[in-house]
Parts: sequence; structure tokens; C-alpha cells
Amino acid sequence: VTVRSAVALARREGHLALDIARRLDAADPLRGFRKRFHLPDGVVYLTGNSLGALPKATVNRLHRAIRAEWGQDLIDSWNKHDWISAPARVGAKIASLIGAEPDEVIVSDSTSMNLFKLLLGALAMRPGRRVVLTEPGNFPTNLYIADGLQRLGLCEVRLAKAPALVDAIDDDVAVVLLTHVHYQSAAAHDMAAFTEAAHSRGALALWDLSHSVGALAVDLNVCGADLAVGCGYKYLNGGPGAPAFQFVGRRHQGEFRSPITGWMGHAAPFAFDDEYVPAAGVRQALCGTPPVLALAALETGVDLVREIGIDGLATKGRALTSFFLQCVSDLEAWSGLSVVSPVDALRRGSHVALRHPDAFAICQALSAYGIVGDFRAPDVLRLGFAPAYIGFEDSWRAAAALRSVLREQRWKEPRFNEKRTVT
Amino acid sequence: VTVRSAVALARREGHLALDIARRLDAADPLRGFRKRFHLPDGVVYLTGNSLGALPKATVNRLHRAIRAEWGQDLIDSWNKHDWISAPARVGAKIASLIGAEPDEVIVSDSTSMNLFKLLLGALAMRPGRRVVLTEPGNFPTNLYIADGLQRLGLCEVRLAKAPALVDAIDDDVAVVLLTHVHYQSAAAHDMAAFTEAAHSRGALALWDLSHSVGALAVDLNVCGADLAVGCGYKYLNGGPGAPAFQFVGRRHQGEFRSPITGWMGHAAPFAFDDEYVPAAGVRQALCGTPPVLALAALETGVDLVREIGIDGLATKGRALTSFFLQCVSDLEAWSGLSVVSPVDALRRGSHVALRHPDAFAICQALSAYGIVGDFRAPDVLRLGFAPAYIGFEDSWRAAAALRSVLREQRWKEPRFNEKRTVT
Repeated sequence: VTVRSAVALARREGHLALDIARRLDAADPLRGFRKRFHLPDGVVYLTGNSLGALPKATVNRLHRAIRAEWGQDLIDSWNKHDWISAPARVGAKIASLIGAEPDEVIVSDSTSMNLFKLLLGALAMRPGRRVVLTEPGNFPTNLYIADGLQRLGLCEVRLAKAPALVDAIDDDVAVVLLTHVHYQSAAAHDMAAFTEAAHSRGALALWDLSHSVGALAVDLNVCGADLAVGCGYKYLNGGPGAPAFQFVGRRHQGEFRSPITGWMGHAAPFAFDDEYVPAAGVRQALCGTPPVLALAALETGVDLVREIGIDGLATKGRALTSFFLQCVSDLEAWSGLSVVSPVDALRRGSHVALRHPDAFAICQALSAYGIVGDFRAPDVLRLGFAPAYIGFEDSWRAAAALRSVLREQRWKEPRFNEKRTVT
Repeated sequence: VTVRSAVALARREGHLALDIARRLDAADPLRGFRKRFHLPDGVVYLTGNSLGALPKATVNRLHRAIRAEWGQDLIDSWNKHDWISAPARVGAKIASLIGAEPDEVIVSDSTSMNLFKLLLGALAMRPGRRVVLTEPGNFPTNLYIADGLQRLGLCEVRLAKAPALVDAIDDDVAVVLLTHVHYQSAAAHDMAAFTEAAHSRGALALWDLSHSVGALAVDLNVCGADLAVGCGYKYLNGGPGAPAFQFVGRRHQGEFRSPITGWMGHAAPFAFDDEYVPAAGVRQALCGTPPVLALAALETGVDLVREIGIDGLATKGRALTSFFLQCVSDLEAWSGLSVVSPVDALRRGSHVALRHPDAFAICQALSAYGIVGDFRAPDVLRLGFAPAYIGFEDSWRAAAALRSVLREQRWKEPRFNEKRTVT
């Protein structure tokens, strides 16, 4: 049974096809990887797009990093366990997931910090141009970081939404900053087309891969991307607040200068010279001492994604979201729910956004069914289908629970409307 | 037996007084805390000033953070286990160690990153002044970060060494950037005097506490310090590459603006507004998503330092370094060794720097005796006496091994002269 035929069958039969979901799971070549993760019982975890699940291997890897490396070998571990190479080593592994060369990616800091470094770096590579062009509604930290640079007098921020975005690229634009997959809608930009549009006006393209890396087969170099950043704690399963990564294309590495010149970006950090000499290549984008334990967790998560294979993950992710959307396709007619995410699976990330005026309470009510999704202000319910450990039956269960909550108006129960901090 | 009398006795008897060391250990009120750390057998670990040892409690705390929080409660942990407050909560705990108010300190990023943020923040608070004044030979990342700002055209760096440093503070100086305890020599600056000198010319004082926090009783507010940063992985025992902290004095919190405007520094990060509104107080110096596991490790280390008590640690640290220096006081006469660190314990951090043309090989030879020190280019042997877990007998053993290495010229054996990466 293929996904396409199963979805067609579900549509024809007009019901939520649990048996079809089970057949899809049975035919899923990745189904064996679910047991490689710790997942709580009785829960369908659909926020792997926000915080990826814990790989079982990470528990052992961290225990070793804590007890045997830090606890036993202490300072010698910088050499003995090659802590010092971890940012480049893990970066090279991530490179294989995003169509980059091993020496084009390095792990450090947070996505926000890396955006700051690469935006300023891009501006310096386009002297005479002052504009950072990005989209309104982009993930806030992208907008905030650009705004902060503007407040420092280092750039001018221009906002334009696709399709007007392309026309907004003029000779003043130094860099176009776009998020590949939108954090809310899951809409995926055409990376090749926007990058080409930027280049045709002499601008650079900086891509935020936070919601695509580990779930979609990104191909930075085929698309001609100049710079990129991305997140380690979503589909890479690197742990809460895992370090982020940055990509600087080889052709820019001679010219790129990191504006935050920390000692780990020095050509010879352990010479302790007073004078700053940048390291070659992307390594100069390092700054402070690498977060060793967090890097060990991230590396284990990345290793697992590489073992599963990014193409298989991307294929399954599209199938899961398609199946789920098929299962809920009749709800729009009567429930007040609308699908925000693109219908075309190739234009979508691995999560799904649904709009409803009571999305917050609906999200809470779903959790009473063991369906963990998340809410994004003001009215979006977001469900992530991390293909490494989510199956078709999970998708069916989420759809069935959503149907039940909406039909029975469960979300109107006062207990689901208590406000709290939402992450 | 007091330290003073024991040291006097050792001097009078003219030998390395193992029995005295043991009596000092027996009288040490902190001696019970050593067993709260994992330390390798047969080793005297004298690089706790570079990478603090592993508290036993950290193993359990991290296991819980990994399995029960990340693995089981997943995204709910942001609320349920209050991950979201960890940067401020751990910051408040560190505040108690450095003479700051709880809302003046927050944990995030690396020391280098925090230097960048606070230096730029300081420059903005002193409009019309462009100079960052610091010392040659300061820890390199301080110099590099300032240099990077200069390359961006955002400041002018001026270098001056004490005592000329004070005279170099003129009306162009926006901020004086000093490291409290020097990473190499262990010389401690007079924080109150330099801060007052800065203020008398209208400049701000930014202190790097990396080599003092957790070992010395720092009193930022008594000294009138404006801004500070510090390291989590040295005497705070927060783990390799632990996150760093930043201090912004209350009186500056209305005016201070973080230049790197990441989403966690927003007044309402989870509103996902396009417009950046800085959080109140020091929280705006947050940037990306907090590194949860690393914060859990740091918090456990900080809790232990607080339990031991900073005043007792400072007293013991001075006693340990004084005792060690007494034990090696005759070596300068015949071995080519010279003591770099100040003689006055009150002007010294908790490590000791010794200069020798063959310091690298001597450091290697010491490790054959189980004495783990470190080498700092070009010719410094550095030995750290972390008072939480190092004892007087350890200090005696280090002195005895050093004496033996020098007397027998053990460092000349070829195996000790193999060059390698030094951290």
C-alpha cells in the first residue's frame, strides 16, 4: 500500500482509517527507529518541531561525557576526547544533511547569536549596501536581531512579504534573510528561486534552517545559498537549548569576517597572543569556549538522523502530514478550523498549522487525550510530525482526538482555558 | 594550628612539611567537601581554575534533567520544571557570590559573547565617548572582543598597563574593561580603586570575574562596579564550556540596552510579535533559547559553592596558595624558576603562576607524578588550588614533585618535550 493510495482510500471511505494508518506503519521503512527514542507512554508527541525527543543513545553518551570525560580525565579531555574539535566535527556531520561541504558548517552559540554574526558578516561583504531584507511574520528572533543591528546604525531593515519580496530586492540590499520553513505555517520557501533572485541583484542570501534541518532534504550548495544558520534542538534531537550551527559557503570564506571575535575564532587560541588573527574558514565564527556536554548530546542526535537518512525522513514527513491533513479535511466545513499550511507537501515542512479562534483551549483539550501539540499566538494550533519517531497511527490518533474535541466542544470546559506561559 | 604558624614552622624547619600539611587538612573546616566531588585516583588536580571538577550531585541532577525532564516531560518541562526561569534563577544564585542583587545577574551565552554585549551596551551609555580602555596581556578574548568592536567602527581600543592605566582614563573613555584576577599571574586588581578611578572621569567599569568567581569574595556593589561578566566552568564547577553570566547594576538597568536582541531578551518572547520590545532589567541580555542541560549542571555547581560558603573558600584558597609558595620558596635560588604571582595573598587569586624557560616540559614531567597543572605560553606553569576540593597535602605533593622534577632535571627527558595542543 502506498501513501498516496491509502490517503485516496481514506478519502473515498470518508472515515478516519485506523486500519490504513496501521498498514502504512507496517510498510514504513523507518518504523524501527521509534524504539531508538525515549518517548513517554500514552502520549502522541507532536512538538518534535519545537523540542526533539531524547534518543536513547544520548543518555549513555552524556553519562560517558559527564563521568568518564569531565569527571575522570578532566582537562586532558580537550585532547584525549577531542572536545576541542567537536564544533567542527558536529558541524561537518550537519553539513551532510543540508547539502554543504564538511568545512562549511560549524556548531556554536544560539541561532540568534549566529544570525547576528552572519548578518553583520554579510553586510561587510557588500560594502555600500545597507539593507537587510526580510519578511514580516518571520520567526521573531530573525526580526529582532535585524532590528538590533538597525538600532546600532549598522543596517536598515526592509520588510516585504512574498511575492513582493522579490521586487523589494534592489541595489541597496546587502542580504536577504529568509527562514526556509515558516515556524508557524510550515510553508517552505523556494530556496533556489529566492537565492537566485538575491544574486541577480547582487545581494547575498542567508537562510534560517531551524524548521527544516533534519526533516527536509535541504541542498544549500545546489541552491547557491551564501550563508545559513539553524537550530539543534528540533529535528536534530540535540536536547533543550542545544547549540546552533552556521554555514558559510566556501566561496565566501576568504572574505567573511566574524564580527564577534572571541578567542575560539582565533587562528591560534592557545598562543594567547594579544593580537586577534582570525581562524581560516568558518572556524572564525566560533566565539567562546565550546559547550562540551551540549555538543555531545547534539552529536548523538545528529548521528541518529544521519543513520536514519535524510531522504527517508523527508519522504516520511511529507506522508505523515499529508495523511493527517487528509484525516481532518472535512473539519474545515463545520468546526471553525482552517488549515494554514500549504496543501502541496513539497512546499511544506514536517509540521501542520491549523487556525481556530480557540486554538489555545483546543490545544489544552487535546492534551487531555494525550496529544501534545503547541499553540502559537494568537490563534494557531501547531502539530509537528517528526518522522524519526512519529507514525501514521499517531497521526490518526491526533486527527481522531481533534475531531472529538471539536465535535464535543470539549475546549469550552473552563479547565482548558486557564492561561499559562506558553513555550 | 593556624596556617600562619604552620607556614612559619615549615619555613623554620627548612623542609617540605608533610606532617604540617596533614595537620592543616585535619583542621580545615572545608575538608569534608572534597568527597562531594568525583576526582580521579592518584592525581592532584591543580587545574580547577581552568576546568572545575565534577560535583557528585551533578551526575544525578543531569540524569534527572535528561531522563525525567527532557525524555519524559519534554516540551512541558519549560513550565513544569521551570526551565524558562533557569537563566535568572541561576543568575540570582551567582549574585550572592559576587556581592550583587539577585536581579542584577543572569546566565547566558559565553563570557566572550557577554563581553561583546556589555561593552557595546556600555558605549551606548556613554555617548560621545568612544574609547574602551583595557590592559595588554589581559585574557585574550577580552582584547579580541574589544578589537572586533573597533574593526566594526564602534569604538577605539586603548591599552595601558597598571599603574599607567589610571592616568590613561580621560574624558574619551567610555568603559574600563579589566579582569579581576589575571588568568596567568593570578594578580588581583583592586576593584574598588579602579572602579572609582573610572567613575572619577565619568567612565564605566566592566569587570571580568572569570578567575575570581567561586574562589574569591567579590563585592561588586560595595566596589561600585557597573557591569561584569564571568565564567561558569572554573571555580563554579559548572562543566566544560558551561554558560557564562553577566551583571548589570540596578542603577544602569533603565538605560542599558543589549545590542544583540534575541527573542529571549524580549519583554514577551511568547507573544511572537514582530516588534522588538526589550525585557526589563538584566533579562534583556538574554539572547537565544537557554541551554537547559548546561544550566542544570551549572546550577548544581553553584549550589555547592553556596553551600560551602564563599568566605570560607576564599580564606582556604589564600592559605593553600600561601602554603604552596612557602614550600617552593627556596627553588628560585637554584632552579631557574621564578614566582610570577603576587606575594601578598590578598592581592592574589586561587592559582599560582611560576615562570621557567622549560615550563611546558616541566608541566608534562609533573603529570608523570600525578600532578595536573597547565602551561600557558610562552613560559608559565600554572597551578590552581580550588579550595573546594584541594587540600594542603595536595599542595605539599605538588611542591615535592616540582622540587624533584627540577632537581633531577626530569623535564629534559625527550618524552616530556613532545608538543601537543594545549588547552
